[in-house]
Amino acid sequence: MPLEPWKTLRTRLLLDRSPWLRLLADDVQLPDGRVVNDYLRLESPDYVVIVPVDESARIGLIRSYKRGPDRIDLQPPAGLLEPGETVQAAAERELREEAGCVAATWTDLGAYVVGGNLGGGWAHLFLASGCRPAGPPDSGDLEEQEIVWVSVEDARRLYLNAQAFGQLSTVAAIGLALARLPG
Amino acid sequence: MPLEPWKTLRTRLLLDRSPWLRLLADDVQLPDGRVVNDYLRLESPDYVVIVPVDESARIGLIRSYKRGPDRIDLQPPAGLLEPGETVQAAAERELREEAGCVAATWTDLGAYVVGGNLGGGWAHLFLASGCRPAGPPDSGDLEEQEIVWVSVEDARRLYLNAQAFGQLSTVAAIGLALARLPG
Repeated sequence: MPLEPWKTLRTRLLLDRSPWLRLLADDVQLPDGRVVNDYLRLESPDYVVIVPVDESARIGLIRSYKRGPDRIDLQPPAGLLEPGETVQAAAERELREEAGCVAATWTDLGAYVVGGNLGGGWAHLFLASGCRPAGPPDSGDLEEQEIVWVSVEDARRLYLNAQAFGQLSTVAAIGLALARLPG
Repeated sequence: MPLEPWKTLRTRLLLDRSPWLRLLADDVQLPDGRVVNDYLRLESPDYVVIVPVDESARIGLIRSYKRGPDRIDLQPPAGLLEPGETVQAAAERELREEAGCVAATWTDLGAYVVGGNLGGGWAHLFLASGCRPAGPPDSGDLEEQEIVWVSVEDARRLYLNAQAFGQLSTVAAIGLALARLPG
């Protein structure tokens, strides 16, 4: 039997904290006819995650306190799309703001939804190669942050250390980038 | 200057849809003394994602409609922790229920929070090696689903195809598993 999507019968807004999030409850009909009420759905902005590689084959990572994992964490430059902004423009802006770089070549690593059931924003992942300095970083974020540049070998070691990274989008992006890099 | 965590001054509950989620608003103090009000925080259950490899070196993936990406998607066996359940017990249970397997060897691939800012549950990722059939799958999930077993080579091809997977936890888990498998 071919798999079929669910059908949304009606939607209620439970909470609106735009632009950060909206929480909705859907009544959905399954392919076998059953109706499930109040299936929760989170709407939150899409975001970009960029793994920057410079001309010395070093990978740029941001070190900062992150509220989600509640720890000082390492992650690639990342940020929410601004209203009306394209995904590519957001990626270039965040790379410039957080790493102080422009890239020679962009590779799309795909877009992935954050929550398999609940939904939420999509993470748009990129590899940015041939990065060159283009001025001092200026993230505008609440977080104090610093950038560290590590060799591909060190990035691979961090990636395989189950403790080094605290965020799902970090291991997703770093893994996809490493799979495309030599060494 | 060393990086410091933020301090939580007070917390308000905005919405309680336990056991699926709770949404909170924190007033937080940054290391420079500034106070930010209403920083949103999502609480949702932790979950496990298991990449199963059988004795013929094939990787097991579940094909089903997923509400988050709103598409028929491929993903490793996965599921929420039940109340009081350990992470390891949840992983073994989901592998048995969704893939109909027991594993000879478990490798912890780390735990990662879903949202860097908003928080949410932690995804506990595993590689389950030497999987053997232990009875028919019985997921108990709302989704109709089927399991497909693919070679490591095919899994790598899917992983590098930016369209094949729709969920962040899928590419995170598959990437970490592939990095530990020969070939």
